[in-house]
Amino acid sequence: MSVGVLVGRFQPFHNGHLAAVKHALGKVDYLYVVVGSSQKSHERENPFTASERIGMLKAALDGAGVPPSKWMAIPLADTISHSVWPATLKTTVPKFDMVFTNDSLTTRLLKEQGMKVYHVPYLKRDKYSGTNVRSGILEMKDWEKLVPKEVATMVRQVRGVERVKSMVQKDLQGD
Amino acid sequence: MSVGVLVGRFQPFHNGHLAAVKHALGKVDYLYVVVGSSQKSHERENPFTASERIGMLKAALDGAGVPPSKWMAIPLADTISHSVWPATLKTTVPKFDMVFTNDSLTTRLLKEQGMKVYHVPYLKRDKYSGTNVRSGILEMKDWEKLVPKEVATMVRQVRGVERVKSMVQKDLQGD
Amino acid sequence: MSVGVLVGRFQPFHNGHLAAVKHALGKVDYLYVVVGSSQKSHERENPFTASERIGMLKAALDGAGVPPSKWMAIPLADTISHSVWPATLKTTVPKFDMVFTNDSLTTRLLKEQGMKVYHVPYLKRDKYSGTNVRSGILEMKDWEKLVPKEVATMVRQVRGVERVKSMVQKDLQGD
Amino acid sequence: MSVGVLVGRFQPFHNGHLAAVKHALGKVDYLYVVVGSSQKSHERENPFTASERIGMLKAALDGAGVPPSKWMAIPLADTISHSVWPATLKTTVPKFDMVFTNDSLTTRLLKEQGMKVYHVPYLKRDKYSGTNVRSGILEMKDWEKLVPKEVATMVRQVRGVERVKSMVQKDLQGD
Amino acid sequence: MSVGVLVGRFQPFHNGHLAAVKHALGKVDYLYVVVGSSQKSHERENPFTASERIGMLKAALDGAGVPPSKWMAIPLADTISHSVWPATLKTTVPKFDMVFTNDSLTTRLLKEQGMKVYHVPYLKRDKYSGTNVRSGILEMKDWEKLVPKEVATMVRQVRGVERVKSMVQKDLQGD
Amino acid sequence: MSVGVLVGRFQPFHNGHLAAVKHALGKVDYLYVVVGSSQKSHERENPFTASERIGMLKAALDGAGVPPSKWMAIPLADTISHSVWPATLKTTVPKFDMVFTNDSLTTRLLKEQGMKVYHVPYLKRDKYSGTNVRSGILEMKDWEKLVPKEVATMVRQVRGVERVKSMVQKDLQGD
Repeated sequence: MSVGVLVGRFQPFHNGHLAAVKHALGKVDYLYVVVGSSQKSHERENPFTASERIGMLKAALDGAGVPPSKWMAIPLADTISHSVWPATLKTTVPKFDMVFTNDSLTTRLLKEQGMKVYHVPYLKRDKYSGTNVRSGILEMKDWEKLVPKEVATMVRQVRGVERVKSMVQKDLQGD
Repeated sequence: MSVGVLVGRFQPFHNGHLAAVKHALGKVDYLYVVVGSSQKSHERENPFTASERIGMLKAALDGAGVPPSKWMAIPLADTISHSVWPATLKTTVPKFDMVFTNDSLTTRLLKEQGMKVYHVPYLKRDKYSGTNVRSGILEMKDWEKLVPKEVATMVRQVRGVERVKSMVQKDLQGD
Repeated sequence: MSVGVLVGRFQPFHNGHLAAVKHALGKVDYLYVVVGSSQKSHERENPFTASERIGMLKAALDGAGVPPSKWMAIPLADTISHSVWPATLKTTVPKFDMVFTNDSLTTRLLKEQGMKVYHVPYLKRDKYSGTNVRSGILEMKDWEKLVPKEVATMVRQVRGVERVKSMVQKDLQGD
Repeated sequence: MSVGVLVGRFQPFHNGHLAAVKHALGKVDYLYVVVGSSQKSHERENPFTASERIGMLKAALDGAGVPPSKWMAIPLADTISHSVWPATLKTTVPKFDMVFTNDSLTTRLLKEQGMKVYHVPYLKRDKYSGTNVRSGILEMKDWEKLVPKEVATMVRQVRGVERVKSMVQKDLQGD
Repeated sequence: MSVGVLVGRFQPFHNGHLAAVKHALGKVDYLYVVVGSSQKSHERENPFTASERIGMLKAALDGAGVPPSKWMAIPLADTISHSVWPATLKTTVPKFDMVFTNDSLTTRLLKEQGMKVYHVPYLKRDKYSGTNVRSGILEMKDWEKLVPKEVATMVRQVRGVERVKSMVQKDLQGD
Repeated sequence: MSVGVLVGRFQPFHNGHLAAVKHALGKVDYLYVVVGSSQKSHERENPFTASERIGMLKAALDGAGVPPSKWMAIPLADTISHSVWPATLKTTVPKFDMVFTNDSLTTRLLKEQGMKVYHVPYLKRDKYSGTNVRSGILEMKDWEKLVPKEVATMVRQVRGVERVKSMVQKDLQGD
């Protein structure tokens, strides 16, 4: 049985991520979906908690008919040194054969440790990106089309729109 | 849908843990199995890594016919302050209704935060405990009967017997 | 007896902060003044240590006639995860009923945990802000009018002007 | 004005601690009471949070008629390296002239950095000690006589007796 | 015997650094070369690991004929609080008499603790700087003239050019 | 050129350690002497700081005629997870071919990562051990014969005897 790891921050999980999960599951029998920078939340670039992100991921994959027997989420916090991140990945995620990621730092770190890393074809990259979704939430326009409907529901449930706006206000505030 | 959390260290996952998972799944529709003290390994009381423990858990539950649609593992590191552990649990694990644990510290911490905590009936407590399994591994006698067979296989694969012995030698060493 | 918490970084404590303390003490019987990001100092946006900031706070409140029986300072370091900051606040500061802050992130975090948060009316916001004081110190013009006189004395005593300048030089330096 | 620091863990604050505060206030004009190991709680030797300990301290000193104009509590977490603890003390507590403590490690660390450290005469040492109070709580006998009455009230309010018992049970538990 | 400390990040070690080491060795009998921010690597401003930086330093100094009996490298990680960095330096590096650095923050921190700090004359500052070397690596032009030839060799051996490029790509990436 | 690493805590550096360095230098051309648990000091089992331990090591090796061109000390702090310690070792120490250690945990961790680990023959193990030296210091008898004379001098210079005694008193103290 071949086992893969897909690494992302999923802030939030969008249609491009869903396509990436499906792509990876076409290459391996089982997939660990690593929710990176798991300690981060309530920041402009990282609004959602690991709790919320895993919840979105599960709701979206269940909704898309991806069988639960094929994947599991694993939250992983950043390490103080980038250079020990691959060791932390290996010591947290069960034995795997390859990694899927489009992040250049992750790719470099893992390749320097001799791991197999694969690039995932982008789904309309100019459209589906976390940056676009977060900007859309902030400006309250069109972001719901960029994410699975279960994610849109959860963003609203945790008052994600208000939260993203608070993060921006923060940047404008004095002290 | 009711969601539960089962907290344990699973050093290693034994038959008592399997019974606990089944018990909890009789009470809730979905279960997050929190692999606590996830940062620990290579210690006498904590020989196995999170990677190994999640791997054992998955192999054992798959082997026991527990459907993957009913549970997911979540590794969780200890916090520097016990008192913020409940907040870390909530910020990492998707929304849940109740917690299953027999650990008195975990119970106390969660109850002080107003969470619902349930005790799990022990399966032959004097027999099935992590302490007994680790002692059995060390003395190389009878430990394999205390764990699901998939766990026994994985303990051998990661040379767990040698590892547990090294930990004890360490305690006897000078410097 | 009603107890409040006022959260700020106080880099340094200025007249707007003094007005905020007085405002909060009009609403509660006792006030814990939380000196946030207590671990930070010697940075452009955070030049002063917790030691210096608590010293300034005490000197300024004593000088303004705020009775010591009404307040106490509590230094609080940032947490690695924003989402556990409210739990750290509660586990460090004695039992309180409400929080006063103008910071949008702090407000959001605490409200998400169900706490009562109140906004403090600004005293001439375009004038009294930490940013203005730090810029004033850097350009050595007019900053002393923005802070209680005890604070101005302490800034000079710890050679705060030289320190703030060093932080800016640092940003311009090569390596 | 002479300023002192009194260092303790106050797990919990007992009559010996109260005598120490009074002794120190006979030597200095103002006293910072450092609540050490502030990050610890819910452990057998450290049952109470910083929140609870500062609350007890304030209630007890108010009850004993120690004027609030003479002291302030400062929580201080342990450092990873003992050897940098004195620097952390100095960077957190406002400028001080001397330290009062009976702890031999604290004494050694501070003296090695050239600070003035004074021993506090013990009040019936065989009777008044944190160890005795915690044992008394556990066995539910006579502990209330060892602490100011405000502390006894607060220990009961936070269900401290149950908490201390949970810590001991924890030690007896398997896993 | 007079002992000095030279503090730098050495990202990477360039001809200006080599001149600084020689300058310092003209003033003291023995030099500890502190490799600062040792935990950092794989960042645009900090591409190389402590392992690589110490290796470059040793190769370059050996190549330049600086006798090994005159110096040793000491990696030192950043501290969470700038204000305790001097204490960490003293607790890690053997007893020393003075520090050489051109960094304004380091200078300020150490002077505030009463240490002797000396500025090192720059060797053609507009030419020899870490920033210039990293930009040169990125644009693949002329950087090799800015560093000792042993450093150029090691940068290529660890595929430093590819690494620096990955860091920049990272900045341009969506998510 | 073959490069080795010798791992120890050197609390303090004793004659057995000196023999180990010489043994390792008989096998490799260059040796990095890793001063482990570098963050620890002022504990009964770890009385000396990294600063002091590197100072002792250098004085002792210089005194024993081991050429400085053959070795360098590298302080290394413990990692939160044992399982990532080998990655931290590799990211801190320049490229090496083999490791010398008698510690069973270190041996296990490194072998599990596929590194070459060699045992060092003990020099009169019942006599030369850190435990014996520390006990000797505590009881003030015969410890000076167990260490190089430069180490004995430095232990006295840093008032190591008083320090070790303080650590024991600490264990006996109430609170």
